[in-house]
Amino acid sequence: MPLYDVKGKTVVVVDILRATSCMTTAFAHGVKSIRPVAEVEEGLALKEQGYLIAGERGGEKVAGFDLGNSPFEYMNEELQGIKMGVTTTNGTRAISLSKGASLLAIGSFLNLRAVSTLLNDQESDILIVCAGWKGHVNLEDTLFAGALAEQLTAKFTHACDSTLMAISLYHTAKNDLPGFLQYSSHVQRLQGLGIEKDIAFCLQRDLYDVVPLLKEDELVL
Amino acid sequence: MPLYDVKGKTVVVVDILRATSCMTTAFAHGVKSIRPVAEVEEGLALKEQGYLIAGERGGEKVAGFDLGNSPFEYMNEELQGIKMGVTTTNGTRAISLSKGASLLAIGSFLNLRAVSTLLNDQESDILIVCAGWKGHVNLEDTLFAGALAEQLTAKFTHACDSTLMAISLYHTAKNDLPGFLQYSSHVQRLQGLGIEKDIAFCLQRDLYDVVPLLKEDELVL
Repeated sequence: MPLYDVKGKTVVVVDILRATSCMTTAFAHGVKSIRPVAEVEEGLALKEQGYLIAGERGGEKVAGFDLGNSPFEYMNEELQGIKMGVTTTNGTRAISLSKGASLLAIGSFLNLRAVSTLLNDQESDILIVCAGWKGHVNLEDTLFAGALAEQLTAKFTHACDSTLMAISLYHTAKNDLPGFLQYSSHVQRLQGLGIEKDIAFCLQRDLYDVVPLLKEDELVL
Repeated sequence: MPLYDVKGKTVVVVDILRATSCMTTAFAHGVKSIRPVAEVEEGLALKEQGYLIAGERGGEKVAGFDLGNSPFEYMNEELQGIKMGVTTTNGTRAISLSKGASLLAIGSFLNLRAVSTLLNDQESDILIVCAGWKGHVNLEDTLFAGALAEQLTAKFTHACDSTLMAISLYHTAKNDLPGFLQYSSHVQRLQGLGIEKDIAFCLQRDLYDVVPLLKEDELVL
């Protein structure tokens, strides 16, 4: 991130396992808004203001929070019209680092087509911000970046070799994303938590036609 | 680099186009030692001490230097037994950031097999430091990292998804490295300088059986 200026750009924030996949799922199920916060304490303060709060640290639900970080927790009729607060290990930090963009969108395989349609209508440069894992690159966010970048090649050119690499990796992986990802460090960490079902879900493409956008401090449709 | 500690590790520094390819070529042609320096002024000071000096900025030879950054300049019988000073845009900086490693080796496609043989004899963890371009990742250094990492999989495991990505990219590219690289940002920059011959040369595997190692402040065999 220190190498890139988000100012004037359209930024897509990606944290496939599982923050941005959960956010996409939440909006597809009627959530009104999501406020991303960096700290657990901020989440708890939002709860006192009537927000439903979701949070994860090290892949597990935070004590005192209403929801964790499994997309299946967000498929709930009771979420219709509510306001949520969310904090995760890497995803909310990536959003925070991307503030100042002219447009900030939430991307995941679940809303890949909806995001690429939105981007192809933009005239500004595009930056895909992969949350990664504690500063390190990860495979699943990079594969999504490749899938998205591939959808943009008719209108945009690439400014960095990382885009070429992501597209090439996605080409190699796209016919079996779960198989390609099974050796990734993050997937191996999550398998220890017994959430193979979450991983399989988050790797599905074009399930939802929603694009969460940041307005002021909250994500909305 | 801020994410990794080189202490106690075997580090391989890579700058395929063209610093580490030139260094490999120089040692294969009898150079006695190479002192990497960060600044042009340090290079000029070495010249006064009797060193032959080589340097590049923005891909072009530095004024007042004896050699530039083309590997063909290093295929010269007159280099036998001499001491050199070298400064380049990214390669010498990567060496400088890697000081403190228990062993620091210079890698390129030209000495791939020699480097992997050396590494497979080591017991410490291995870090492959890709010089990249002004802090950005680049394709050619990553492809070399993948080629090298692939040679280490029988003995070592990977600690980061970047290794998996590099290996996968190398698999995709290995039967036509020049073709795969033609869209990379660095290759396009260098094509503007008319050095296609250099690029083709630097992508050849296993031409030389030498591994430059850093001892104190100088590379030696």
